[in-house]
This record gives sequence, structure tokens and C-alpha cells, in this order.
Amino acid sequence: MPDPQSRPQLKVRRVNLDTGRENVVVMSRRSKALRPEVFRGFSRVELSCKSKVLLATLLITDDGLVAADEIGLAEPAFRRFGEAAGCLVTVSPAAPPDSLDAVRAKIQGHALSAAEIGAIIDDISHYRYSDMEVAAFLISSASFMTSDELLALSRAMAQAGTQLKWDRPIIVDKHCIGGIPGNRTSMIVVPIVAAYGLTIPKTSSRAITSPAGTADTMEVLARVDLGVDEMKEVVNACRGCLVWGGHVNLAPADDILISVERPLSIDTREQMVASIMSKKLAAGSTHLLIDLPVGPAAKLTTAMEAIRLRKLFEFVGDRFGIAVEVVTTDGRQPIGNGIGPVLEAHDVMAVLSNAPDAPADLREKSLRLAAHLLEFDPDLRGGSGYTRARELLDSGKALKQMQKIIDAQGPSGCRTDLGNLTADIAAPRDGLVEAIDCLRLNRLGRTAGAPIDKGAGIKVFKKIGDAVQAGEPLYRIHAYDPSGFDLAVAAAKADNGYVVDSRLNDREKKQ
Amino acid sequence: MPDPQSRPQLKVRRVNLDTGRENVVVMSRRSKALRPEVFRGFSRVELSCKSKVLLATLLITDDGLVAADEIGLAEPAFRRFGEAAGCLVTVSPAAPPDSLDAVRAKIQGHALSAAEIGAIIDDISHYRYSDMEVAAFLISSASFMTSDELLALSRAMAQAGTQLKWDRPIIVDKHCIGGIPGNRTSMIVVPIVAAYGLTIPKTSSRAITSPAGTADTMEVLARVDLGVDEMKEVVNACRGCLVWGGHVNLAPADDILISVERPLSIDTREQMVASIMSKKLAAGSTHLLIDLPVGPAAKLTTAMEAIRLRKLFEFVGDRFGIAVEVVTTDGRQPIGNGIGPVLEAHDVMAVLSNAPDAPADLREKSLRLAAHLLEFDPDLRGGSGYTRARELLDSGKALKQMQKIIDAQGPSGCRTDLGNLTADIAAPRDGLVEAIDCLRLNRLGRTAGAPIDKGAGIKVFKKIGDAVQAGEPLYRIHAYDPSGFDLAVAAAKADNGYVVDSRLNDREKKQ
Repeated sequence: MPDPQSRPQLKVRRVNLDTGRENVVVMSRRSKALRPEVFRGFSRVELSCKSKVLLATLLITDDGLVAADEIGLAEPAFRRFGEAAGCLVTVSPAAPPDSLDAVRAKIQGHALSAAEIGAIIDDISHYRYSDMEVAAFLISSASFMTSDELLALSRAMAQAGTQLKWDRPIIVDKHCIGGIPGNRTSMIVVPIVAAYGLTIPKTSSRAITSPAGTADTMEVLARVDLGVDEMKEVVNACRGCLVWGGHVNLAPADDILISVERPLSIDTREQMVASIMSKKLAAGSTHLLIDLPVGPAAKLTTAMEAIRLRKLFEFVGDRFGIAVEVVTTDGRQPIGNGIGPVLEAHDVMAVLSNAPDAPADLREKSLRLAAHLLEFDPDLRGGSGYTRARELLDSGKALKQMQKIIDAQGPSGCRTDLGNLTADIAAPRDGLVEAIDCLRLNRLGRTAGAPIDKGAGIKVFKKIGDAVQAGEPLYRIHAYDPSGFDLAVAAAKADNGYVVDSRLNDREKKQ
Repeated sequence: MPDPQSRPQLKVRRVNLDTGRENVVVMSRRSKALRPEVFRGFSRVELSCKSKVLLATLLITDDGLVAADEIGLAEPAFRRFGEAAGCLVTVSPAAPPDSLDAVRAKIQGHALSAAEIGAIIDDISHYRYSDMEVAAFLISSASFMTSDELLALSRAMAQAGTQLKWDRPIIVDKHCIGGIPGNRTSMIVVPIVAAYGLTIPKTSSRAITSPAGTADTMEVLARVDLGVDEMKEVVNACRGCLVWGGHVNLAPADDILISVERPLSIDTREQMVASIMSKKLAAGSTHLLIDLPVGPAAKLTTAMEAIRLRKLFEFVGDRFGIAVEVVTTDGRQPIGNGIGPVLEAHDVMAVLSNAPDAPADLREKSLRLAAHLLEFDPDLRGGSGYTRARELLDSGKALKQMQKIIDAQGPSGCRTDLGNLTADIAAPRDGLVEAIDCLRLNRLGRTAGAPIDKGAGIKVFKKIGDAVQAGEPLYRIHAYDPSGFDLAVAAAKADNGYVVDSRLNDREKKQ
């Protein structure tokens, strides 16, 4: 190809279009730089300006959006290119990244070397792949992945972003694979463990498809978008933190993979393990507790699946020198009474302050997880983790530690009132609650506005095994926004997500 | 989910953005219909208006492009939705098409049933898949495809579009898998076969990554964008035609698959066979000749690859009741002297009119292919096909038939003069032409402007085995457009695509 300097240059224009993670640029069909007809068959272009290079997917417009001597950069491309509007760039057809050869080999059934996987992750984390190219890598690895590939992938993802270093021998961490509404154990476990004296620098995600992630809920109480240095300060002061991982930039390639996995609903064990373990490796964890909820509407539906996943976590942990312990928990129904950031934050603070309305299931599960984490301390007498955790909670020491963490992270300034639009969803008949569809409640909570509207969500009144009478409320929907509220109420009336079995109730009455 | 009627409606606005085959819509972040924040994690939406439904990929804009009460439809989505700007539509998160479950099963290594493949192809051909979802299907099938899957895929693709019916017992067809510059044998074979008396309703493609497809070259001489009825009229009058397949809508799913295969450079034997055989099944062919060029820069590089591909064509042909014959041809260099529509059309007419400058290789290859096709006639004495084909060519009967076809198809009105900007690319040293890189010449021809500029291209003077002297022209670049011309000349000077071996020449001199 000829010297790019000989090509006419185009003026950069910012185009207000959010194209997700993919770099997208727009050129006029009458572009003077290169006739886009020449590009038929090419959909990827390379922009260069000074020493900067950006690969992007090309869209063509006939008029209006950009002039013939301009190139429009959609939001993510504009941000990543980092040049001002009006600057001049050279555009040429982009050669595909070299690492795509390895992706094609993987499609044909070859196992990849660590170097090949490293090159793929490097290109992905520098936004050199189109969404389709990311999908090609994901799908080809979803068919099969060897143990060596899984290790190489986890390591490459960990190395592609921030890598935290701590000058302490034990850094504990916990992680739940998610899917259970409520379930904000981290916000109780972290203060217990930190109060005990172990270091637990917890990074959490925001909700992607659920009504709240730990980061969304913690944000009701404190700022969560801390950078690496701020996070370290908090941990030095409090031995623990509860921050959003997105701002710390741990394993950013993972976020890109997830953004493509989700619309395709690809979710393999290997990809889940690589996703989690890469973040833990990057976070500098030495001891890790994994929580695997099992239930009919959870991510794992059988004990056998949980065992297979457990072994995979143990394998990768061993090879990385991370002490991994995996517990299987009850994932049949929500944990706690609240679903949505404000409601969940209320549950958490109720447990920490030993309030009378504190949900017992959230308290028990948190104590059990904290117990496992405390046992990571070689100096603790074996078997006494649970008792110590309970002492720290009951004595108010965990609450005090939480307040210290909240103060250190500072106020978030976000709205924290509960949604004032409310509707109770009633049991259709007398009976016993037989099952609760977690997926359904998650969807209702999002429709009501969570997690964007912090005070939107669902307050659960009845759990599995509870007796209910016809007309008695199963849960209450909260929202700020009338349209989301109406949609959520209508959806809940069409399918409330509860199975109420009247025969069981009859049987009980007879006894 | 609640009744869609309760959702606010949005006004359709046309957005001048060519998003290729994918349906794309744009909504404001402040949209009143549904708050796009709710859509985080969803990238697909469903538009409905009266009984019309469209699935599309959603982009978000902050302001300007569309108002809060509007939804912008990019060009392909606007065209397919078929409603006027300003009409009101309801928008909701789109459930993924059911057939994606089968794609996920395929990713996990399952073989799919004919019904599952049929549902996938139906959804793809109705534009219900995103590009990523199409990629997921392609990549999962690229890993492996059983014979039954290949048959089901070919059949489903054939059934998803126009299916031509002919009331004649023998419908012959020919197909080349492509990759060789020049090589316009169809335009010589069709008139010979039609002059002989067999029916050959030839549909051809336009160039995708090469400087000319048969449809592009035929367009220099006649209109090629005929509809089904017009095509049938021409065939009834002339026993043959040379039209663009795109307008006849044979196996449209194939074009969608190709639009995704190409950027990913996935090209498996099974997908190639399904692509070709589905079009032939839809075209109503009973007898089919396949041309497989083999050469170092061709699609097939070894005889072994050609044999494996041949067997696959034979297998599918047998199961479909199509008599398939496969020939392997020399794919080491361009066929004919011209590369690009006008130059290739000149070669074709030179061969048909027995002109002194007619390229011998194009004539010989066309006669050989025509001979195979004539032998499909059970009434022709075995072994006399070549002689009959040559008689029809030498006597001018084939030329007369071609003129009849050209008249029947009518004038195209496109520009037919040769590019007036010319540059000769000279041999760097004395020697013998040892090899010619077909890929390189294809790329130079496109850079010069072909196939959009009909008169752009390359006129080849030297072929493999020819002696050249330093400074003697190897080929001439033609173009209309100065910028494409400059780029092509610079690229050819950097790498002319020829290997000239001076040692061979020395040896010859010594003899």
C-alpha cells in the first residue's frame, strides 16, 4: 500500500452516537479522502493522526451527518482517539489484527498457545476488534477450552489492566457468581472481616441485568467510583473497602467480553471462571471465597453443576497460588427482604446494627461466609470462625467498621429516598409459598427503575414456606417514575413470580 | 410483559446512515417511550406498527440526531419497515429469536436437525438476527458441520427465497468458485450452450472483493438487473441469459451469511458448498458444472483440497438429484488479458468474434467447459462435445446467440469507455515470468476503481513462462479517477505481483 501521507486528510467531527464498546466512524458516500465504494467488502478502517492509530467500523451516510471532507467519530471512538474535533486524520482500509489468525485457528478446533491468547486479549483490550471479531473469539472458545487455555486466558486478562500490589501476606476476597435478588452479603462480610483484622479490598460490579449490584447498593451509603490510589488509602485506613471495580480498571478485557457474551447469552463455565479469576489475580488476592447459589432460577440449577464449577475454580486457584474455597448456598429465593439499591442498603444496615427488622437469612448467610474468610487466618483456632464473626457483628464492631469505611469513601450525593409510588402485589389464594422465581423478581425490579432509580425495587414480605391468605401482599413495588411503575405493576399482575400451593395449606390445616 | 398498547409511541424518522445488512435504530437517551437506561444490557429492540414488526439493534444518542419522541431508522431498517416517516410505532425490548437456542446448542457441539436449521435460516433471511447473532451461527458451524446439516442448510437457504421452475427436462448451469482475475468464461459458455440448444439461465454475482464479477462485466454490454419475469422472457427467447442474481432473490440468506463471513474471513468448504448448491437448487438447475481453479494464490492451493471439495459437491448434488460434474482448472494466473469490466468484456467479445487479439487461454478454457456442458445432452454422441462447442464458436453462431441475449436484456446505459488514465508497470529485470500473484492483481484493479468504474482495471501483457526484458511492460493500469489511479500505480510500483526469474532466463540463453 502507498505512503499514507499521499492520501487526502479528513477533519474529525464528533458524532453524538453511543455505540457501546465498539469504535464506529461515519463517512460521507461522497468522501474526498477515499471513495467509500472502494470500501465495499471492507467494513473496518484505520484512522491515524500523529502517532495515534484507531481501528473502527465504518458506516456510510449519504448526506447531512458528515461532510465530504469530514469523518464522524461516534462517542466511544471520539473519546478513545483523544483528539479535538477539527483535527486532521488519514483514513485507510484496516488490515485485520494479526491475532485474528489465532481466532480462525480456534474456530477450526486448534488449542491456542499462551502467546496467541495473550495477543488476542491485548488487541481486544485496546479496542482493535470489532464486536463481530470479539464474538468470533468467544464463540470459538465456548465450544471447548483446554485447561491450559483457561489459565492463559485468565492470566492474559489479569495482565491487560491495573494490577494491584499489597504489602501484606494475606489479602482475602469473596465473590458470588450472582443471580439471586437481594443477597448483599459483601456489605456485611467486608466490615466483619476488616473488624477482625484481615485485609479485604473488595471491588464489586454494578448491575448488568439485575436490579442492583453491590456497587449500586453501596453507592446509596457512600461514593464507590474511587480510583486506584483512593482505594488504597481507604484500605490502608480501614483494612477494607467496597468500591466499584469499573473505575479501578481491573481486567478491562473481561468487560468487553461480557458486553458481547450478554446479547448472545453465551455463558460457559470456563468463561465465567476466567472472568472472575482474572479480576482476583489482578486485585492481588491471596485467599478467595466463592459463593455458588444453586436453585431452579439461579445460574446453577443442580448440585452436580456446582461441583463441576467448584473444581474449575479450585484448579485455577491452585495454579495461580490463590487459596480458593468454594461454598454452595441456597439459591432458591431472594436473600434479605429488599430488592433494589435503597431497599438492599436498608437490609444491610439493619443486619449490621442488629435491628429487630433485620432479615435473618441475610444475617445467617453473611455470618457463614465471614466465618470461612476468618478461617483463612492461620492464627485463628480451627472451627471458631463463625463464633468470632458473630461476636464482631453482635458487639457492633462490624457496624463501627462499616461506618469507618463509609466515611473514608465519602458521600456519593445520589438520591437515597425510597420510591414513593407503591403497589402491593397480593396472593391470589390461600396457601403456602412453594417457589419464587428469582429471574422474574429481577426483571420486575428493573422495570420499576432499579438500579438507575436507587429507590425503585421490591420489598419482599413472603418467602418459601410462608403461609399466605388470598389478598395478603406477597411484596411491594416501589418506584419514582410513573411509566416504569405502571409497567412493573402490570407485569407483576400478569405473572407475580410466586407459586402458592393451596393443597399444602389444606394438608397443614388438616393436621 | 404488559400490553404494548400501554406504552407511549414514537414517531419514525429516517436516519441517513447505511448500516449494511443490519437493522439499526437510534433513540434519544431522553426518550419518553422507554427510558433507555432500562435497556442497559439489552441491545435489541422490537418496533411494531399495525401488523408490522421489526427487530433492530439499538444505538443511543444524547441529542440532535433524534428527538425524545422520535425513533431514527437507519437506511436498511427504514426500507424494510416500509412505513412513512412520521408514523407512530411502539418500541419494546426484543426477545431474541427462538432459533438462537439452536445456535447455542450448535456452539456447544450439538448437530442440528433440519427443522432447527430451517428456523435459523428463516429468521436470518427475515433480518431478525443481529450481525453478531449471524456470526454466532457461522462460527459455530465453521467448527464442524455434518453431511445432514450441510444438506439441510443448502435446502433451507434455497427455500428461503425465489424458486425458479422451468418446464424443460434439462436446465444446465455452470459455476466457478472464483478468485481468478479475468476468467469470464460464462459469457462465452452461455451463448455456445444456448446456440447448441440447451437451456442455461445463468445468474451471476457482482464482484465483492475482486475487480469484476460476471454481472459487472456483462453490464458493460447489457442490462443485468432483471427481475424473475424478465429473466424468464429472455430465457424463453434465447435459451440463455446472463443476469445479476441479486435482483432475482435466489437464496437471500446466503448473501447475509456472506456479508458476515467476509469481514471475519471465514471460508469453510461446507459453507461454500451450501452457498453455491442452495442457489443452484433455487434456480431449478438439473445439470451443473463446477469449475475449481487451483493455484498458489487461488482459493484452492492443492489438488488434494480440490478433490475434497469436489466430493462434497458431488454428495450434495446426488442427494438433491442434480447431476454435478466438477473440473479442476489452472488457477495460477489470470485468464484472458483484461481485469476489470470493460477490459474483460472486450476479451469476451474478441473470443466470440474470433478476433486476432482474442486471448487463447480464455478461448480454450471456455471451449473445454462448454464441451462438458454439451455432454449433459443425452442425445450428443459421447466425446464430441468439444468439437461441437468449437464449431459453434468458430462459425459465429455463438456470437449471434450472444447478440440475441444482449438485445433481449437491453442496454444498461452504463459508461463503457476504457479508463483514459494509464500507466505501464515495467519488468524490473530480464527474465522469465515465474509466477503471478492473482490476489495482488485483484487488489490493484480495485484500487484503480473497478468494478464501480467500469473502465478501470489492468491489461495484462505477460503471462507465466513469457520472457521479459527489463523495462518492458508487464501490464497497464487503467482508471478514470486520479486519486484511485495514483494509489494503484504507487501500490504496483511497491509490489507488482510478478515473480521474474532471471536465472531461468540465463539458463535459456545458454541453451
